Order: sequence, then C-alpha cells, then structure tokens
Amino acid sequence: MALSLPQGFSSHVANIGIKDNTTDFVVVAADSICAAAGVFTQSRFAGPSVVVSRRNIANHAARAVVVISKNANVATGAEGLRNANEVVGGVAHSLGCAPDDVLIASTGVIGRQYPMDSVRDGLAAIPTPLNGRDATEVAIGIMTTDTVAKVASATVAGSSATVIGVAKGVGMIEPNMATLITLMFTDALVDAHVLDATFRRVIDRTFNCVSIDTDTSTSDTAIVMCSGAAGEVDLGAFEVALHKVALSLTKQVARDGEGAEKLIEVLVDGARDDAQAKRVAKAIVNSPLVKTAVHGADPNWGRVAMAVGKCSDETDVHESNVVIRFGTQECFPTQVDNAGLVALSAYLTSDEVLIHVSLGIANGTATVWGCDLTDAYVHINADYTT
Amino acid sequence: MALSLPQGFSSHVANIGIKDNTTDFVVVAADSICAAAGVFTQSRFAGPSVVVSRRNIANHAARAVVVISKNANVATGAEGLRNANEVVGGVAHSLGCAPDDVLIASTGVIGRQYPMDSVRDGLAAIPTPLNGRDATEVAIGIMTTDTVAKVASATVAGSSATVIGVAKGVGMIEPNMATLITLMFTDALVDAHVLDATFRRVIDRTFNCVSIDTDTSTSDTAIVMCSGAAGEVDLGAFEVALHKVALSLTKQVARDGEGAEKLIEVLVDGARDDAQAKRVAKAIVNSPLVKTAVHGADPNWGRVAMAVGKCSDETDVHESNVVIRFGTQECFPTQVDNAGLVALSAYLTSDEVLIHVSLGIANGTATVWGCDLTDAYVHINADYTT
Repeated sequence: MALSLPQGFSSHVANIGIKDNTTDFVVVAADSICAAAGVFTQSRFAGPSVVVSRRNIANHAARAVVVISKNANVATGAEGLRNANEVVGGVAHSLGCAPDDVLIASTGVIGRQYPMDSVRDGLAAIPTPLNGRDATEVAIGIMTTDTVAKVASATVAGSSATVIGVAKGVGMIEPNMATLITLMFTDALVDAHVLDATFRRVIDRTFNCVSIDTDTSTSDTAIVMCSGAAGEVDLGAFEVALHKVALSLTKQVARDGEGAEKLIEVLVDGARDDAQAKRVAKAIVNSPLVKTAVHGADPNWGRVAMAVGKCSDETDVHESNVVIRFGTQECFPTQVDNAGLVALSAYLTSDEVLIHVSLGIANGTATVWGCDLTDAYVHINADYTT
Repeated sequence: MALSLPQGFSSHVANIGIKDNTTDFVVVAADSICAAAGVFTQSRFAGPSVVVSRRNIANHAARAVVVISKNANVATGAEGLRNANEVVGGVAHSLGCAPDDVLIASTGVIGRQYPMDSVRDGLAAIPTPLNGRDATEVAIGIMTTDTVAKVASATVAGSSATVIGVAKGVGMIEPNMATLITLMFTDALVDAHVLDATFRRVIDRTFNCVSIDTDTSTSDTAIVMCSGAAGEVDLGAFEVALHKVALSLTKQVARDGEGAEKLIEVLVDGARDDAQAKRVAKAIVNSPLVKTAVHGADPNWGRVAMAVGKCSDETDVHESNVVIRFGTQECFPTQVDNAGLVALSAYLTSDEVLIHVSLGIANGTATVWGCDLTDAYVHINADYTT
C-alpha cells in the first residue's frame, strides 16, 4: 500500500540506533521553503523539540521536519536543548537551508539524553537530495509502540492537490509517554496565514477531541506543510480535505489506544455552545467507569448520567432536560426495561460505540473520540521491568 | 472490636431486602435535636437523597440520619423524590420528630426505584426507642462493595468527648456508583455554625483530597452530628479530633479503592498557594499512567513530570524550578542512575507510596490520596453481566 507524499516533498527514513533496529529517524522536506503551521502541547514540561519547533514555525514557513522516535528528549535540561538544536542544524546543513527552517518532533522515553554519537552518524548519512516518497514508510518511522501505521489521504475537490497525513500514538511497551505526533503534507498552494487558521480549526475538531487516558504528553506536535506544487485550490475544499485526513487519523489513534478494543464516539448536542458540549463529551469519554462499562458490554447507562453530572460547573445542565442514548437507543429519561438492557448489552459488544447525550439547552454540539479501558492498558503501563 | 457511638446517640441496623440479605438499612439518632453539618456532591445528577438532606440540614440541626445501601435512588425522577420523602417521613414517625429533622443518604445502583414494599416493612420495624450503639455495625450497614468496614475514633483533648466516624466506598461489583458516604458523631457540645465551618475545613483537607478514579458520584454525602452529651470542649481540640477521624477514614477509603493494592500519597509543596498545590497533586494522583507505574513498581518518574506538565494553566510552574521525589529519593532534576532506578523500583513495591513534588514558587502545600490502577479495577467495573 505505497502511498506517496504529495508533489514537492521527499523523505528519508532510517534506523540510526536510538533504541533498537526499527526505523527511528525521519526527515520530510519540501523542495523549497513553503507555508507551514504547527500546534503543540501546552505542557509545562514541553520538551526541547517543542520549544525549537515553536520558535522555528513562528514565521509560518518551513523547509523540512525531522522526527526522532523512541526517545522524547524531555526533562533533559540545557543539554537536551543543545542536542535538539544540533539535530535541526544537521538536517539544515544536508538540505542547504537555514536551521530555523527545520522543525523537529520527538517521542519516546522521558528523562534521557539522545545517544548523540548515533544521532551524528545519522545526520551525516542523510542523502542529498532526499530520495524517498513513501508516506507509509514515514508513518512507520515515527511510531513508538503503535500497533499499526496511521496514514490518511484526501484529494482537494476541483484540483489535482492531495493531502497526506501520518500520525503516531498512543501506546507504550516501555516507560514512554503516549505522545501524539501528526504530520500533514499537501501540494496545494495555500497562504501561510490562511493555512494556520485552517489548521487550528481542523485540529480543534479532530485531534483536540481525542482522549485515550487524560494524560497530556510533553511532546504533542501537529504540523502541516504546503509545497504548493499543485497550485491554488478552493480554500473550502482544502479545509474539507484537511479535515477528512485529520479525522481519519484521529479515529485511527483512538482505535489504537493503549490496550483498546473499541472506539468510543461521544456526541453531545443541545448544549449552550460548542465549548460546553466538548467539556461534557470529554467528561464522558474520559470516565474510567464509562470506559470499563463499554469494555465489558455492561449496559450501565447510569455511569453516563454520573459523568454528565460531575460537570458541576455547568449549572445550566438539568437532569430533567437531559436525554441519554447509546446508538439510537434511549436510556434516560425513558426507563430501560430488561429487554432494553439486553439489547444495549448486545450493542456494546460492537467495536465502535456511540454515546449520544442531548442537554436540552441550546444548539451547541461536539463529537469526541476515545477508547475502552482494558486490563491490557494496565498491563502495558505497569509491566515495565527494570 | 465493638466501638460504641458517642453518648447521646443510638442506632438501628437491619436488612430490609434492598438487594440481598446483608444489612442495608441504618438509622442513627440523637436523643434530641442537635447541631449538624453536611457536605454533599456537586453532581448535576444529584439524587433525591442529596436533595432532601441538603434541604433538611439548612437549619444546621438534625435528629437522625437514615442510610439505604445497595440502591442509590438516582436518576429516578419525581417518583424517586417521593420515595426519599417517604423514607424520611417514616423514620421521623418512629422517632417522634419532624420529617425535616431527618437526613438521608443512599448508595448503590443508579436508575432504579427503591423496592418500596420492602422499605415500608423496614420502616414499620424500626424499634422505639432505637436499641443499638455499635459503630462498626453502622459502618457495615452502609457498605456496598467495600471489602472492609471503615471506622475511626478520636477523643477530644481536655474533655470526655469522642468523635466516631464511619465511611463507605469505594468499590463495586455491580453497576453501582462508587459513592462516598461518611457519617461522624460526637458527644461534644459545639455551636451549629462553628460546627459547619469546622466540618467544611476538615472535609476540604481530607475527603475532598481523595480520588480513586476521577468519577464524582451522584450521591456523595458527609454528615456530622453533635449530641452535646459530653458538654463543651475546646474548639481547637475538637477540630484536631474531627480531622484525625476524617483523615483515618480518607486513607481507609483510598486503600480500599476499587481493585487497589497500594495507597498513593501525593505531597505538593512550594506552590503559589494551597489551591494550586492541590490542583497539581490531583493531576498526579489521577494520572492513569502514574497509577499504573506505581502498580507495576515501574520507576518511571517521567510520568510525574508529565502529570505536572499537563497542568497547563499553571503558568508559573517552570520545569527549571521543579523537584520530583519518590519517598525521599530525588528523581528530577538530579539524574537517576541505574542503581537509583533499582532502588526506586524497590521503593514502589511497598504498599504505601509517597510522591513529593516541590514547585519552587512559594509556600503553598497540599496532600492528596489515591490508589494504584490495577487490572482488578477493570475487571470489577467491566464484568457486570446482565
């Protein structure tokens, strides 16, 4: 399933010995400086990669992005920052661009320095020019403990432009952080400021709506780059395509959540506004009691009532206005009889579960995605041995 | 280990057939109307028991409290509210007091009506006067799926007064909510308004600092009643005794968390203020990645850095000022070598783990309690079958 990067991009994917013999070093470069946008973790322990990328993308332009996987380079102090700058500098040297035109992301164990001897060898081995185009290879190269590579593509209607996205997350077999990294590439020609606004809207409705376990990574990074090789496109069609790619990747991430067996989609509507709908939806999708109930196909809709109820700041949410459904089956306020509980339990055995809550206030709406909580999650995250 | 209620209180504990043949009906009454205070869930789905108790304690006085366990009477609409009022009325009739002098708490499955025929029989069988005094029997009567009864006592220094407390939570073998109920009784004579303020301070530093799984119950209830039979006491000594009882019960609840094998205590100091310390401490104790690391004795201190980091609103928290310790062992910023990781892993095998984070801002401090996340938690909450 070789899926190529859009026109105007090339790649280099290699193993440079960060941890094992899987690919752990990825460079994707545009043929020349192009419009780019990025969204990063809000963690107070954001790693040097995030610090450097945030700085280098401030001008809404970039030439390349480099990803090192299997080591997050987080909580590594001044030495970690020097190393991140050295990686960016090395990539820039290979490409013949300025260091501040190179973005960087990293994911893996926290609190350890890069093995810089290996990294320097890897930087020296970057071919000139880059000779790869395979998006799936890029997706594999940024994985840590993902069980599947995550790639999505869409065409921009009315043009020859495509959007290709890759993502990694969320799993761990080591003491690694469940970092989310997503990179999107398009050959559409889009103004840098329009791209930035479009990308933030799209991320807000996709990746910012996924939660595996409430734990925000120190390294979350989402980047888009536009080579422009396919020329100008309709901006509405471009946003549709970008959204389609981001949504596909979001669902792929949720479904591959640590130990997950089911995708949970939570739709909240009838809220005061979209932001309230998102807060309530996140309370539901993050509830360990809801997640375990879905895992066990337990028709325990009362836990959804509990999760709505714990949003105690939402003082306009009143029990008497709330409707709770699983799929299309109403559970509250209409009382579920025993046959209904059996039907609900059967519904919960499917690998994609929709929880739909209507708040009965106004027209705000939001959809978020998560996964069930399984004993595999506990094993994956507890059974690291020294 | 018969521990008696303080002077001026008597009790009735019975099985009235709510679900099985264990005790499920508890009345504790003072000999006459006495000072009382209560703190309740902030859930938007608060059950009728909470609604009725909140109303009846508004005058800071009560004669009795009744607890029904194994059925929460939540999300039960107008019929549920009528039933709660009927229970309160029945207890008041037996005691010869006004219905609004009786408080009520309930815990168990959500979304089902009380079996009112059984409840009416139970109300009719309340002896006059109440003939029990055993606090442990009271603690057992309010249990749902707790594995141990939770009782604590303390004497008020410089007086003959005692404080006795009971609590239930947090476990489930059914689709029940992990409700917290705690009742405290004292024969100290304390002014009702002083009692209210004292109780809120104590609860805020004890039960409001415990988290098993972030899911706020629809039924959480904490009540204290003062018979006054032991006369006036030093108010400082009274608060010390009340705090001692509440703290003991809080730790008992955390240790008996669903599937828990270890008590986790998180101390955050050096914060801007106590409130910030509590927010950061809760982010740590609620992190599933921290909880699983403790469970697996995984010396993965980076997850604590992640949990501090995800408090993204705390903009005065800077990585360069943070110190992370497990017990007394510093993990950050001092680099942990391999011997240190082995020592840390050994420390994590103990059944009580202290995580100590200093923020380096000012003098705010908070301690919170939780437990590890185990596959038993998943099994307990997923393996309900219809």
